[in-house]
Amino acid sequence: MSKTKPIRIMSMGKYLPLSISSEVLEKEYGLPKGWSEKYSGVISRHKATTEHNGFMGARAAEEALEKGNMTLADIDLLISASGTYDYPLPNQASVIKAEMKDGNKYHFAAIDIDSTCLSFVAALEFATGILDGKRYKNILIVSSEISSKGLNPDNWETLTLFGDGAVAAVVSYQEYSDSKYIMGGQRTYSEGVYHTIIEGGGNRYFFKENPYNKELHSFKMNGKQLLKLARIKVPEFIDWFFKDLENTIDTVDAIIPHQASKAGISILRKLYKIDDKIVKETLHKYGNCIAASIPLTLMDAIDSGEVKRGDVCLLIGTSAGFSIGAALIKY
Amino acid sequence: MSKTKPIRIMSMGKYLPLSISSEVLEKEYGLPKGWSEKYSGVISRHKATTEHNGFMGARAAEEALEKGNMTLADIDLLISASGTYDYPLPNQASVIKAEMKDGNKYHFAAIDIDSTCLSFVAALEFATGILDGKRYKNILIVSSEISSKGLNPDNWETLTLFGDGAVAAVVSYQEYSDSKYIMGGQRTYSEGVYHTIIEGGGNRYFFKENPYNKELHSFKMNGKQLLKLARIKVPEFIDWFFKDLENTIDTVDAIIPHQASKAGISILRKLYKIDDKIVKETLHKYGNCIAASIPLTLMDAIDSGEVKRGDVCLLIGTSAGFSIGAALIKY
Repeated sequence: MSKTKPIRIMSMGKYLPLSISSEVLEKEYGLPKGWSEKYSGVISRHKATTEHNGFMGARAAEEALEKGNMTLADIDLLISASGTYDYPLPNQASVIKAEMKDGNKYHFAAIDIDSTCLSFVAALEFATGILDGKRYKNILIVSSEISSKGLNPDNWETLTLFGDGAVAAVVSYQEYSDSKYIMGGQRTYSEGVYHTIIEGGGNRYFFKENPYNKELHSFKMNGKQLLKLARIKVPEFIDWFFKDLENTIDTVDAIIPHQASKAGISILRKLYKIDDKIVKETLHKYGNCIAASIPLTLMDAIDSGEVKRGDVCLLIGTSAGFSIGAALIKY
Repeated sequence: MSKTKPIRIMSMGKYLPLSISSEVLEKEYGLPKGWSEKYSGVISRHKATTEHNGFMGARAAEEALEKGNMTLADIDLLISASGTYDYPLPNQASVIKAEMKDGNKYHFAAIDIDSTCLSFVAALEFATGILDGKRYKNILIVSSEISSKGLNPDNWETLTLFGDGAVAAVVSYQEYSDSKYIMGGQRTYSEGVYHTIIEGGGNRYFFKENPYNKELHSFKMNGKQLLKLARIKVPEFIDWFFKDLENTIDTVDAIIPHQASKAGISILRKLYKIDDKIVKETLHKYGNCIAASIPLTLMDAIDSGEVKRGDVCLLIGTSAGFSIGAALIKY
């Protein structure tokens, strides 16, 4: 098939700050004991204390390089694929590169790709597009997310759902490997553009005229509307995505969904009656880590042996905007 | 050459808010008359009043489509290629798409690519990578920038230098056209990562603990250090960029530089003794419009007839991070 390309995820690395259990979180914010697990499905998540996005991303990237027996000299491009950031400017990829050991010694490009929770999947699609084994042999994709600052403590749903963490992957053009990028794509359904939003902090509600308040500057989601829209659009998306492929959603070896929420993860299970073992889940221990969720879940599945070389994996999720996106890879 | 690809900029569109002359700006902020033109080279720039990034980007994109005799039905992907944004979340491309007439009716992907001032050039490189005439036939790249909010009135250099504006291009895979994407690339020199920065407003100096102050939340640049670094790195970059190409910097028909500053634009002129007519300039009337500067300058040169079909154009600039990037196209 013309769509496949010999792209291989060579290695992955991660950095997780301190873990905080739901029990501790519930005590700290005065929530009933057990609320978090019952309603969000999250038992613990990680939370940055002194770390920032650049630091966490750099550590994850270094681990990915080390595991792949590579150094920065092998890298042709660093993509930061995240929804959160250290500074409005410069771009996050530049910060991650500068934070890496020897980051100043090499001059590969550092560019951000942002499709909120689908940033890693979008980065994989663009990386696949430019990887050619010549100018671009190895690309480092880093998703480093700190969600905890942008949460409203009065909103228990989001307070207990989100987590922080960073993950990185070295993605390479490997003509003689069995690995493949089979297909990727995203569709943006603009009717849901403001179902998830952080209103304050950009040009629309600029800080100067809009001092911090937890309502304006925190992540808001209209969970019910989102789920309703997802239930309608996911089947449309799946039909579009698999239209010209040999694979079907029933025949993939593993589904790595965005860990959006308990209900979000079960949409695919319910719609397509997919075996629970096929759909990988890390929500209970990491929470929703925005763009880092899909690669963190993939990395865990690889490390635990649940995903092996040669397995066909569907990375799939929803993101603010409102988008659905996926990548089908032979790992 | 293997690097060339049959990519054609089909059409462009722009949206500019009200123009504000340097005389008016100087009066408003108590600057000596003539300071702006003398030191920044800017006689007038545009400044958003009620407009926001999404609105301006949508109008520019609509104009580009109209000029190309296309509709949203022809578009496979919208890339927002900008350094500034309406909201921390969702991503800017989703906002632009939703703001466009009939934006809700079509479901092409909306993704951001951010390399600050080089975002348009980076987007062109990635767009070229995935354009294949099949899944991706036509991509809409939009750079919509509002710099005016992030300026410190006490810093006359930046206050008078920057402008607001939006510009869009439809970029297509056109096998039988004479147009070509010859080469693109970026190099990031991390030693200059914080020479340009907006410190406040991300996770590093979060608004909650850091209320607005014009020093922390405004654009800062170490102009002298930047120029010094650029003078050293531009020749290295040019050597790297043209190494395997038939073209040289002396033989291109037009150079479209980022309108970084008066001194920034003249680096290439001075280093390579390039004819003034080859290097296009819009700084005096638009100021530095971040990522919109390169495409605005290209569009002006096309509209005025200075750049014609078949001309070889070098889009080139610097960006925060610190990066140098370029794209060589046969328009």
